[in-house]
Formats: sequence, structure tokens, C-alpha cells
Amino acid sequence: MAVYTEVSFEELEVFLADYDIGEPLSFKGIAEGVENSNYFLQSERGAFILTLYEKRVCGGDLPFFLGLLEHLAARGIVCPVPVRSKQGAPSAILNRRPAALLTFLNGVSLRRPEARHCAAAGAALAALHEAGKDFALARPNALGADSWRELAAACAPRAHEVQSDLGALIESEAAELAAHWPRQLPSGVIHADLFPDNVLFMNEQVSGLIDFYFACNDAYAYDLAVMLNAWCFEPDGAFNLTKGKALADAYRRRRALSDAEIAALPFLARGAALRFLLTRLYDWLNPDPSALVRPKDPRDYAKRLRFHRKVASAAEYGL
Amino acid sequence: MAVYTEVSFEELEVFLADYDIGEPLSFKGIAEGVENSNYFLQSERGAFILTLYEKRVCGGDLPFFLGLLEHLAARGIVCPVPVRSKQGAPSAILNRRPAALLTFLNGVSLRRPEARHCAAAGAALAALHEAGKDFALARPNALGADSWRELAAACAPRAHEVQSDLGALIESEAAELAAHWPRQLPSGVIHADLFPDNVLFMNEQVSGLIDFYFACNDAYAYDLAVMLNAWCFEPDGAFNLTKGKALADAYRRRRALSDAEIAALPFLARGAALRFLLTRLYDWLNPDPSALVRPKDPRDYAKRLRFHRKVASAAEYGL
Repeated sequence: MAVYTEVSFEELEVFLADYDIGEPLSFKGIAEGVENSNYFLQSERGAFILTLYEKRVCGGDLPFFLGLLEHLAARGIVCPVPVRSKQGAPSAILNRRPAALLTFLNGVSLRRPEARHCAAAGAALAALHEAGKDFALARPNALGADSWRELAAACAPRAHEVQSDLGALIESEAAELAAHWPRQLPSGVIHADLFPDNVLFMNEQVSGLIDFYFACNDAYAYDLAVMLNAWCFEPDGAFNLTKGKALADAYRRRRALSDAEIAALPFLARGAALRFLLTRLYDWLNPDPSALVRPKDPRDYAKRLRFHRKVASAAEYGL
Repeated sequence: MAVYTEVSFEELEVFLADYDIGEPLSFKGIAEGVENSNYFLQSERGAFILTLYEKRVCGGDLPFFLGLLEHLAARGIVCPVPVRSKQGAPSAILNRRPAALLTFLNGVSLRRPEARHCAAAGAALAALHEAGKDFALARPNALGADSWRELAAACAPRAHEVQSDLGALIESEAAELAAHWPRQLPSGVIHADLFPDNVLFMNEQVSGLIDFYFACNDAYAYDLAVMLNAWCFEPDGAFNLTKGKALADAYRRRRALSDAEIAALPFLARGAALRFLLTRLYDWLNPDPSALVRPKDPRDYAKRLRFHRKVASAAEYGL
């Protein structure tokens, strides 16, 4: 949510000489992104986002991310697409960072989505899963089940600074979830971070999906579990069954869920809650003085995790 | 250069019900502004900046700032203008902050302006001074000569952390400048912060002036002295006489300088250098952990100050 690498207009002009988008009319850093630097660029030919990839997005993953966006867009998913340079390259180097020029999408993200928005977003997730099925590249989930024990061990010694029993909770959950994680569920390309921030709406319709920099290969139902966590809890921490049912029903109209996926959902939802709890807790305990974002409170996800531990079946989510 | 106060789309919708700008199409926090929160808003009717005024801009000054923008725009200065609400109000309250919706200007700021850009910016400053002459409101310069001794005293005890002799320099300069500050020069509304960041260019022409939140009543020639500091030094700290002459000549073609103004210029330039040295030094020594901006290195302005102390007459600036 910031600009880490400054780009002057003079540097932009040199960069744009390789692209066929006309003269720049406006160029401003925007407060958005997963530790990347993002600029809004208006040119004679339209609106764009210029992204410079900082540490978390490693340059080696760019062919996966940018290729995926082109693949999905070609199959009708509205997402940013890289503008190719005159030489045909989807990315370049700018101020010593990998950089890409992406199309800008209109639409706004909702802070408090209602059930009808949950349904629209659930349908969009299923469409994304279907559209990604024949994508040729793959990327392991760096924040998947195999990563949680290590992350939990790194956080546990100081987790009591946040909540007295949090260290024990994350270590036991990480151990149990890793030991019994379902690895045979239908898998493919997932977004892995489809929070309300990353779904744009216009006139009550989904107008685009953004921020694919956690996309990877993992279980489709895990992506749905991420969304149940991110879209269906109220500010007081209570699960909203109406929203859960709306989201899951709309998803299932576009992509059927197998019995195994439905049975696994409470376990997957625990995993998804633990994943966001761990990364938020890590950032909370280890604030980066050079980061220009305020860390998010990890306790929201501790509360979700405790909720999922008591869920007996997917029926409690509305399935 | 950040977003301090979050505004959700739902909050924006409620706010926009009082304005006649059509439906919002896009809404993003931008990394810009003097400790205010700024959002880029595209609606059916055009592009806007939504600004929420944080601590440094106190609500009582808003009638001056917003009235000045309307006054200047009515006289041909291209600057953001407040969009009035349906009730005719130039500002409102949003998330407990004073807030204004301003027109968005196209154009880009230059990091390394050349002499021709200095000339264009100098002419724009003179036009601004002329256009502001009949503005009815006044605002004292909170960072003017009368403020420097106090600021210097607050910084001096730790100034050696930045440079060994900096404490002595700022205290003696603040005392001498305050004692001999010329108070009879032609005065009126000045921008007081017309750095390259705040001048937009399109096709080599000035397309707009922005960020009027230091605007106040003070000597016109002091505003020119601010620009000599901000536009005419090279990255290595050397003054560029070609740029100084271009800037001053273009200014004087739009507004004549009196002999007293020209004679005072070296002293005013010392004052302008001290003003930016002091605020940068203060922010460097007292970083605000909640600030989402990196403090600027104060040493650039220490070097400029030392340069101006050796200047014998305005001829050394190109006048």
C-alpha cells in the first residue's frame, strides 16, 4: 500500500519509449499492492497500472503471474493484462526492479459486501477456476499447508504478546493441519487471496478481479475456504450463514463441488484461517521499519480459526 | 504521501450523495500530499481528488485554501478547484475529517527540470502572484521568519547527529535572519512551496499548479527565493546559474521586481534554505512512527544555506 521505488517522469519517459501507448498525461503513485510499487498512468490511449515488483514477488514468478493474467483474460475473466512492449515482452526492468505495465480496470472494492456481493464474488471464483484449468505453467503455494509449521514456530515464542494462549493454538493447529491435510482434492490454479479488496464492482456486478500475486496451484476448495473466511464474517467476528450460503451456492452453479471437497471444507477453512493468522501475526511481531503499511490485527483470524475448530460439517457454512 | 484515513466505498457513496458528479467508476488511495489523505476518484463526469485534511492542515484554514483556489482559477491560473456540494459548500466532513472534492489536473511533475522548465515555472509563479492580488482572505506564514528561532532551538541540541556543526549554523542563522528580515517588501498571497513536485507539465508547458496547503501572505520575492532553492541546484549541490537566470527572467517578464526585492534576494534565499532545512531536520530527528512518508535528508538544504551565505548580490543568481 505504498510506493517503495520512486520513478521519476524522466525515467517513465525512457521506459515508455518501448511501448505503444502514446504520450503520458498523468502519473501518480497509488496506495495499493502487496509490497509492490504501483503507479496510476493515464496516457493518450487509456489508463494503466505500472507495477515495480519488490522483494516478495520474485522475478522468477513473473512469467507465471503475467502469463496467467493473459490466459484468464483470453477466457473471459476480467483482470489486468500486461501491455506488451514493442518487442513483445510482457515485463521489463525499471530502476533495477522487474516491472510490468498492466491495463487499469474500473470498479471499486467493497468494505462491507452484502450477501448478493458474496454470491457475485463466489461465481467469479468458480469462473476463474474453470478458466485456469488449461494454463500451462504451475507455481507451488509458498504459503500452503507445508509452510505453516515453520511460520508457527517463528511466531509462537512471542505470540503471547498478542493473546495469552495464541502460541499453543498456532503450534497445535499447524501440526494437526499439516499431518491431516487433504492432498487428493481437485486442484489447479487458485487466486489464494480473493478478499473483498481484490474484487471490483460496478453497478452491483463484478467488474474485475485484481492482485494475482499469491496465485498458485492448490486445491480449488481451499480457495473457496479463503473466501468464506474473508467475505462471510461480520465485524463482531460472527459467521454470517446467509453470506456463506450465497457465496457457496453461486460457486457451485459454475463449478460443482465433489463430496470429498464438501467434507473437507471445515478443515480447509481452519487452514485458511491459520494461513492469514500466521502471516498477519508474523508482520505484527516483526514490523518492517521500511514498510509503509500498517500491519493488520491478527486477532480477527484467531477468532475465525477458533470458530472453524468447532464446525462439524460444511452445512454450518451453508453447503 | 499516503493514506492516513481509510475511506470505504460505502462511505464514499454516502458522501457523494451530496454532489452532482454521477456514479463513481474507480476510487484509489494515492501516494501524495502533505500529510493529508488523498484519493483519486473517477466518476461518470470526470476525474477528481478527494482530500481528507489531517493534523497539519487545520480546518480553520480551509476557507482560505479553497477560496484561494477558486479565486485563482477564476483568473486563469490552472489549479485544482473545489467541487461544490449540491448545497453549495466547498468542503464537508468525512470520517471525522474536513474533506474536499477537487478537480483532477492532468500533467506530470519533473524530477530534473531543465532551464526551459525553470523559465515556465518562474512565469507561472509571477502569474500566480498577479492573480492573487485581490484575494480577500489572508493567512499568516506559519513557517515564516518569525517561526525559525523556535524551530532552530527545538532542533539544535540533536543537530550534530546529522552534521557536526549544524546546531551552531541553524541557531546563528535563525537569529541573524529574524533580526534583519526585510519586512517592507511587496507582499501578497504566495504559494510558499512551489517545488518541481507541485508544477505539472504537459508537452513542455505548465499544465497546472498544485498543493497550495502552505499558501499564505508573505513577500513575493521570498516565493521566488524558495524556487531558486528548489529548482536551480544540481544533484551535486551546485547552483546552476543558467537555470536561475531563466527562472528569474521569466518571472520578471510577468511581474517586475523592485530594486529592494532584488537587493534582498540573497538574504531571502538564505531564509528559504533555512526554512526547508529546519522542517526537514525536525522531521528527520523526530520521525513520526505513524507517518507513512520517509523523511527527506536535511543536508541538501544545509549545503544550499552555506552557498547563499557567500552570495554577495542577486547577480550571482542571474538577476
